[in-house]
Amino acid sequence: MTDGLGHPLTEPLFDRLCLIGVGLIGSSLARVVRHKGLARTIVATDASADVRRRVAGLGLADEIVETPELAVRDADLVILCVPVGAIGETARAIGPYLRAGAIVSDVGSVKSAVLADAAPCLPSNVHFIPGHPVAGTEQSGPDAGFAALFRNRWCILTPPPDADKKAVARLAAFWTAAGANVEFMSASHHDLVLAITSHVPHLIAYNIVGTAADLEEVTQSEVIKYSAGGFRDFTRIAASDPTMWRDVFLNNKDAVLEMLGRFNEDLTALQRMIRRGDGEGLFDLFTHTRAIRRNIIEQGQETAAPDFGRRKDEANGEET
Amino acid sequence: MTDGLGHPLTEPLFDRLCLIGVGLIGSSLARVVRHKGLARTIVATDASADVRRRVAGLGLADEIVETPELAVRDADLVILCVPVGAIGETARAIGPYLRAGAIVSDVGSVKSAVLADAAPCLPSNVHFIPGHPVAGTEQSGPDAGFAALFRNRWCILTPPPDADKKAVARLAAFWTAAGANVEFMSASHHDLVLAITSHVPHLIAYNIVGTAADLEEVTQSEVIKYSAGGFRDFTRIAASDPTMWRDVFLNNKDAVLEMLGRFNEDLTALQRMIRRGDGEGLFDLFTHTRAIRRNIIEQGQETAAPDFGRRKDEANGEET
Repeated sequence: MTDGLGHPLTEPLFDRLCLIGVGLIGSSLARVVRHKGLARTIVATDASADVRRRVAGLGLADEIVETPELAVRDADLVILCVPVGAIGETARAIGPYLRAGAIVSDVGSVKSAVLADAAPCLPSNVHFIPGHPVAGTEQSGPDAGFAALFRNRWCILTPPPDADKKAVARLAAFWTAAGANVEFMSASHHDLVLAITSHVPHLIAYNIVGTAADLEEVTQSEVIKYSAGGFRDFTRIAASDPTMWRDVFLNNKDAVLEMLGRFNEDLTALQRMIRRGDGEGLFDLFTHTRAIRRNIIEQGQETAAPDFGRRKDEANGEET
Repeated sequence: MTDGLGHPLTEPLFDRLCLIGVGLIGSSLARVVRHKGLARTIVATDASADVRRRVAGLGLADEIVETPELAVRDADLVILCVPVGAIGETARAIGPYLRAGAIVSDVGSVKSAVLADAAPCLPSNVHFIPGHPVAGTEQSGPDAGFAALFRNRWCILTPPPDADKKAVARLAAFWTAAGANVEFMSASHHDLVLAITSHVPHLIAYNIVGTAADLEEVTQSEVIKYSAGGFRDFTRIAASDPTMWRDVFLNNKDAVLEMLGRFNEDLTALQRMIRRGDGEGLFDLFTHTRAIRRNIIEQGQETAAPDFGRRKDEANGEET
């Protein structure tokens, strides 16, 4: 989509994109927007002076300012890329400075709480359309981002029922141009879906890593040495950003507790199968779960390549 | 260790290696033994005729025979690479045909049950030294193996207290030459360590994939579309071989139930933190768990590269 000199051939979708928060998601957005020419100007801010300096060093934005209030001026698209727990106060801070007709969105992993916290702080002459690109890695910060992060990942938009259709369509076009597939649903359904596909998986990963760290009969050194038996995979997602995840659990309490309840029921049944030596029941469950992975791979949400905690170029190379 | 023409420069450690079962582990062993010249002859067998044909096609062994009884004749090292539940019957079958002085070992993920099942079936003139290379991928079968699988992974040997020291040293030298680090411990300690580093992680991965598959409010198609939020990682280990894992849980019942009890206690505490909105407690746990991952990466049991369900060469390439 560029002319070979880095200049986009198509008209930018927005004049002035404002990114508040430039971590993994914000910096990936900055990169893809720049790369594809989706906005004429990118203005960015972050609560951390270190991050602002790094964003300048990486050349991720055209303008870097110190506060959200300054950042949003004249922006026609404002995306809050801050932890869910900081969205309410950020909305309160920027409310009076937003341009009339601006689209305001976010990238938080929880949507009902975001809507409840932010909507009342925003003036009625802007379009607030919460969003959630379901993409990421276990790494954080402006250096961790990359332009292809959203490619063939889903971005869920949860516009309120009275949202302006044209504004919703513009935001959807923006995410589509960034490489994502766009889906619409209610905030509450989003929160239930993500509770099972993201929040509870993170919770149990954090939990087992915590359990393993606190054992007395098995030393921490043994846990680390023998982590290739499966534990290793859980430490990956349990290395995700603590602030982000604290906020997710505090702000999606009901759906998480509901899905955790189902998980616990099923785990109790599985525990009983083991206690009773029900090999057939175990085999059936372990076979059933394979089909889901096949579908995930078929739909491009994961590769089929085996993972064994080693770089690909090391896998088959062998010292001779 | 070869002369450049594929011929080993060093004396083979064993004359005749017999592999019973040629799945992921057995076929990886065949490859590394061949590559490094660790045995003069490799003889292999597998209960499945399809697998035997594939092993022949892949050229993984010098001799492929139909039964364990035939396979073990004259072998000075016999390694049982069958599911834990099949080790007892295999030992019973081969007992009368073993060469005096042979070393018999296995690669099962459970050790106390293996010792109890197999030892009584083996004659007193062979050395039975159970083993467990803590290495693998979520894939199975002779095509899934590769020679570097054991490199910088730990192989745990659990020799009985009265085991012959020279035989133990020879088996340890074999695994070291195959690329592994060797560690010794009692069978019961092994089973406790692996319950937390491998068995319970697999159990909860299977469990959450099962929970997600059976929800009514969230469709299977939604689970698959939004799996990039974390769920995806669990489907990887929940795609492991059902027979192998059924046998692990049936044969390491006590340690698994013990560690699952700890996991459940911790999960209940975490659930309470969420219910009560204890942000500080959540943040502390989520920070604590990061340190373990750092150690795992430092010790080479995992790479630091982020994982986002895409091949590395796709990650930064971007359609223009």
